[in-house]
Amino acid sequence: MTAGLSTLFREIRGNVVLWLLAVVPVVFAVKLRHPEAYTLLFVLSVLALVPLATLLSHATESVAARTGDAVGGLINATLGNLTELIIALAALRAGQYMLVKASIAGAIVTNTLFMLGASFLIGGLRHHVQEYNRVSARLQTSLLFLATIAMLVPSIVPDADFAASSTFTQQLSVGLSVLLIGTYALGLVFSLKSHREFFGSSDPAEHGEAALPLGMALATLAGVTVLVALVSEVFIESVQEAAVTLGLTSAFVGFIVVALVGGAAEMAAAFAGARKNRLDLSVGIALGSASQIALFVAPVLVLLSYVLGPTPMNLLFWPGAVVMMLISTLTAFLMTSGGRSAWFVGVLLLMVYLIFAMTLYLLPPAGQ
Amino acid sequence: MTAGLSTLFREIRGNVVLWLLAVVPVVFAVKLRHPEAYTLLFVLSVLALVPLATLLSHATESVAARTGDAVGGLINATLGNLTELIIALAALRAGQYMLVKASIAGAIVTNTLFMLGASFLIGGLRHHVQEYNRVSARLQTSLLFLATIAMLVPSIVPDADFAASSTFTQQLSVGLSVLLIGTYALGLVFSLKSHREFFGSSDPAEHGEAALPLGMALATLAGVTVLVALVSEVFIESVQEAAVTLGLTSAFVGFIVVALVGGAAEMAAAFAGARKNRLDLSVGIALGSASQIALFVAPVLVLLSYVLGPTPMNLLFWPGAVVMMLISTLTAFLMTSGGRSAWFVGVLLLMVYLIFAMTLYLLPPAGQ
Amino acid sequence: MTAGLSTLFREIRGNVVLWLLAVVPVVFAVKLRHPEAYTLLFVLSVLALVPLATLLSHATESVAARTGDAVGGLINATLGNLTELIIALAALRAGQYMLVKASIAGAIVTNTLFMLGASFLIGGLRHHVQEYNRVSARLQTSLLFLATIAMLVPSIVPDADFAASSTFTQQLSVGLSVLLIGTYALGLVFSLKSHREFFGSSDPAEHGEAALPLGMALATLAGVTVLVALVSEVFIESVQEAAVTLGLTSAFVGFIVVALVGGAAEMAAAFAGARKNRLDLSVGIALGSASQIALFVAPVLVLLSYVLGPTPMNLLFWPGAVVMMLISTLTAFLMTSGGRSAWFVGVLLLMVYLIFAMTLYLLPPAGQ
Repeated sequence: MTAGLSTLFREIRGNVVLWLLAVVPVVFAVKLRHPEAYTLLFVLSVLALVPLATLLSHATESVAARTGDAVGGLINATLGNLTELIIALAALRAGQYMLVKASIAGAIVTNTLFMLGASFLIGGLRHHVQEYNRVSARLQTSLLFLATIAMLVPSIVPDADFAASSTFTQQLSVGLSVLLIGTYALGLVFSLKSHREFFGSSDPAEHGEAALPLGMALATLAGVTVLVALVSEVFIESVQEAAVTLGLTSAFVGFIVVALVGGAAEMAAAFAGARKNRLDLSVGIALGSASQIALFVAPVLVLLSYVLGPTPMNLLFWPGAVVMMLISTLTAFLMTSGGRSAWFVGVLLLMVYLIFAMTLYLLPPAGQ
Repeated sequence: MTAGLSTLFREIRGNVVLWLLAVVPVVFAVKLRHPEAYTLLFVLSVLALVPLATLLSHATESVAARTGDAVGGLINATLGNLTELIIALAALRAGQYMLVKASIAGAIVTNTLFMLGASFLIGGLRHHVQEYNRVSARLQTSLLFLATIAMLVPSIVPDADFAASSTFTQQLSVGLSVLLIGTYALGLVFSLKSHREFFGSSDPAEHGEAALPLGMALATLAGVTVLVALVSEVFIESVQEAAVTLGLTSAFVGFIVVALVGGAAEMAAAFAGARKNRLDLSVGIALGSASQIALFVAPVLVLLSYVLGPTPMNLLFWPGAVVMMLISTLTAFLMTSGGRSAWFVGVLLLMVYLIFAMTLYLLPPAGQ
Repeated sequence: MTAGLSTLFREIRGNVVLWLLAVVPVVFAVKLRHPEAYTLLFVLSVLALVPLATLLSHATESVAARTGDAVGGLINATLGNLTELIIALAALRAGQYMLVKASIAGAIVTNTLFMLGASFLIGGLRHHVQEYNRVSARLQTSLLFLATIAMLVPSIVPDADFAASSTFTQQLSVGLSVLLIGTYALGLVFSLKSHREFFGSSDPAEHGEAALPLGMALATLAGVTVLVALVSEVFIESVQEAAVTLGLTSAFVGFIVVALVGGAAEMAAAFAGARKNRLDLSVGIALGSASQIALFVAPVLVLLSYVLGPTPMNLLFWPGAVVMMLISTLTAFLMTSGGRSAWFVGVLLLMVYLIFAMTLYLLPPAGQ
């Protein structure tokens, strides 16, 4: 245990991002003293979530690394987006479904365009041409494509009267959620078991250079999860007011800010992989994370809304969000089909992301 | 002739599906005695159409097999979807254009997603990885893509006043129909003649293990066509009332039920091919049938509506149907571009189909 | 200089199209005597623009050929669509933004479908199967895809009130324009510099069989630019009235007629390349021209509208035009991804073009 603690501390000292952990107590102190300082609380909670997400991601990987291939893969596959899930759960309990949906759509768009694009750009600037496993990329983008279709379908129904439409949307959302979770599970069976030889398992030395011992990892997992949940609460409470003060639309905050904060840890790992010419790792993190959010986190949230939320949440997205998810998925599909990349492929993906970010930033606030 | 008859009977005895032929006289009997028993007539006519479609398909193939490559290919290419055509003609004469269009869209969606997906799944569960001719798949999906564009275009026009728009839609539909039939013909020239070396002609032993003699085949073709036409009439008359009683939306019936009934024979052949690791046969049947309906059956129905229907029919589809056709076509295009398949590719296609079927099943009836 | 002049004259004599230069003075004469003869002026200005565009394109290439690879590539990349740019500028100064946008969308659609499709058809009828550099085709179609997304985004915004929306659209259009020009510049760096080994530089003997001397080329460039500008002015003034007289919708004129006239010179070169089995040249001209219009000409026009136009122009297109551009781009992307072509690929592209042309031709005039 002492060895575990010292490993943990050594890691915190070695990783500059983790120094931000010092902000965590500040968040709670400010929350107690100045509960109305929304903009300050917003900025502080964002700063606090970044190191917590990094720690959480590291603890998850350590647990996965210590429990053998099959269980480890499953843990990674279900807890890989724990930060996003906890933030979304906080928003769900507060009944802020617009924010939940924006953060889901934003995470999909951010991972497939920004995380993937920046990885290609960073890797491409160092290495002339990079190769990666295109079968694996194709599986993930196909799953994403399926999820996007599921999120598109509820909005193509002709205008029936509102009440009927509402029951319809609700039933359809539950059905689609079950179907997406099932497909995700079958996809795991396919890639981890039945056809695993096609999905070149990444080098074991790749992660866990300083894996925590199992006990410490589990304790960290539990402790940090509680902290993330508490900070998320502060974040969700302050985000709307802060957005108004900062002149940001809530669409921009949900799509861009939440997604970048929640995905900070994965991004660090993906970019490091690209620099080291391990593009399989980067592509796997970016697309795997996006497909997990689309086929696991989002449907789980719909089902959990029946237990946790004030009213059930559906899978009906704002049409613009559906279009953006569809374009992101199609772009990622078409750009990764060759299994080769160079810096300009990254530029193209980042430009699509910039187009979306710019649109959301300039969007007139809905209330005015 | 006696030899032919005995071949026919032997075939009927050997094929369990054909035992359902016994239902055919029952349909007519019930129709005479209880013309208002819509639900019973609906169920009976569905049961009767399945063996008739199988017989019709077999007779067509026998005629094709006996008449040499070029003529045979042409016969198969024009009569391959005879059942769908006859059912649609019955609906056309009754002026039920909604049903005609739903059955066209449904056949395209069902063939590209369900028939292809189930073939990949069935084949993939037996054989680890299967290969097929991707040039051929690409030709068919490209044709489908073109047809979907043709069906999308009439609905992107800005709101002009209704009368002008109506003339416009009518003229455009006739023009598009001529264009699609022309493209279909050129596609046959391309794949059967000018570049046939790329479209690996399937093994001659594949079909016609028990091909009927030409005379018997022609007689069967004529006789069964009449029977299908008569049963289709009963089916079309009963389908609407039965749908209400069974709690099914008419969109679901047109899209799913009619398409599955009309395509039963092709499905049996496609699934058998997949089991025997002859995936080229399965892909050819599924995509070939879909493109034939889109580029030949649908435009022929538009042109025939000027002669047979109460008013001309156009190519303007319900927007949801256009979206579903577009997604099906794009999915089939992207999923078959590699020329390789495994069971999970089948799962993905079937899931898209399930999403559509679920949506149509839950759809609130238009009239309420 | 005399040698230059004689080269110029020899070229004019040898090229039948250039005989149409005789129409140029006729345009100005008719304009002076009968300024209201709109239909005549329309037809004459179309006839005059074709040889002028050919001459302009040839002068640009001659300048590019004489100035070394890097500068030459840049000149070709910026002045390659000079005719289209001048025509659009004339429309811009007249405040005819509908026509400007229709001609941009039309040029993209015409180059990716008609020019590319006809090249494939012409080449394919002579040569059984043709190959070309698919990396290069993929770069151009990817750029086009990005531009289409940029033109799609302004129209997916939910209905805010008009004023806010108008500011929003304006700001977004400027931002998107800057972004597209930047991406275009980075694309040039990528294909002409950092990764140029993938973009097989075309044989130097390909162009400039009779390149003009530099001085003559520059003089021709300057002189013909002025003539094109003057004739364009006549064309823009007469096009609307002539369209009504000829029974053409303004959408058809902008999309089809202007695009065919403006692109006549490039088409001649692309078709000649296809006939000589130099498909790389054809694909490069067709897709390169389309991407240049989308990522350079269109955004430059938006930015110039602040200086030249009566009011700023935005990037908000008629939804039908966005759909057509999206389909064209996706079709070109999917059809060129293999790097091989045969005549039927050309037929497919041309059919999509015919579908669009037919729709625009039959479209009821907006004013009625």
